[in-house]
Amino acid sequence: MEELNKQLEFIIELDQLKGVYRQALVKSDGNRFENSAEHSWQITLAAQVLQEHTVKKINISRVISMLLIHDIVEIDAGDMFAFSNSEAHAEQQDKEISAAKRIFGLLPERQFLNYEQLWLEFENAETNDAKFAKAVDRILPLLQNMKNNGGSWARHKVKRSQVLERNKYLESLAPKLWLYACKQIEHAVKQGWLTDA
Amino acid sequence: MEELNKQLEFIIELDQLKGVYRQALVKSDGNRFENSAEHSWQITLAAQVLQEHTVKKINISRVISMLLIHDIVEIDAGDMFAFSNSEAHAEQQDKEISAAKRIFGLLPERQFLNYEQLWLEFENAETNDAKFAKAVDRILPLLQNMKNNGGSWARHKVKRSQVLERNKYLESLAPKLWLYACKQIEHAVKQGWLTDA
Repeated sequence: MEELNKQLEFIIELDQLKGVYRQALVKSDGNRFENSAEHSWQITLAAQVLQEHTVKKINISRVISMLLIHDIVEIDAGDMFAFSNSEAHAEQQDKEISAAKRIFGLLPERQFLNYEQLWLEFENAETNDAKFAKAVDRILPLLQNMKNNGGSWARHKVKRSQVLERNKYLESLAPKLWLYACKQIEHAVKQGWLTDA
Repeated sequence: MEELNKQLEFIIELDQLKGVYRQALVKSDGNRFENSAEHSWQITLAAQVLQEHTVKKINISRVISMLLIHDIVEIDAGDMFAFSNSEAHAEQQDKEISAAKRIFGLLPERQFLNYEQLWLEFENAETNDAKFAKAVDRILPLLQNMKNNGGSWARHKVKRSQVLERNKYLESLAPKLWLYACKQIEHAVKQGWLTDA
């Protein structure tokens, strides 16, 4: 039963991601902040629905696994707003690496190593699977903000150039989605939801 | 772009599941009610972690897809507490069938038919994939309640026999998990979290 007990301990630990709040707003629930657990669900399903738009070979099962686990480190490290300064990002990275060791480390060795590796692959964003996973993770806030008068962009005075840079993985991986994102970003600038810079 | 627009409409619609609340409590977030989106994330990952305990052949990719979509119908139909009376359950079923048509119907035809079929398979719980998906969906509240002084069981005076019946898919599919669940249920009765009936 030892393996099972470790796995159940990990699953119970996951509960804590429901209390990690992001800058994104949930319009359909009174514009409260979104938590990283419900966000993880939505992007995992989004990746499955959008997979046909990739023009490079991806393994959707690996993408799904990455997206299911990609934010778990936030249980210890907290969420960092995408457009924070780079110093804050470096510090966050150290915290997340320790968090991955502790939290995935609750699992039996074999599963620990597998998830840790998968999480690092996502973070490094060098493989097509990781790039597509990142691209989906990053296009969701765009969809949410466009339906919500600019949402977190408007609240934080985010620039057009920042959002374009953040969604760049789409350009070579899923050009149709990239085109869509570019059009939305221009519309957001016109509306004053993104600054013209 | 028409297919893409339909898919994005569906993905945005998913946001609403974050505002559908269940009877389960999130202990790590001040014992607020759990929503069906974050619940869907946790059980999907739980199924991946626990898959090795099945003694019958399952296709984990299908199980994952089922769990990602299994509660989407609640956007229209709302969540129903597992231990409500059977009349309420019949009415709920009608609402959910219409909801599946409307919400999965936002997608291009091919994806609509695929998800509708998968959701029906989950509901009918006749295949091993669907039984395992249901089993994981149902063992999570047990894990949560055991860590939370009986949680939703205690609040609703649920009986031991109801919880045993609800977790029955484990018996033939994952005997080790069934044994674990039975022990936990007995402990819950001793603690007074489940009634001795």
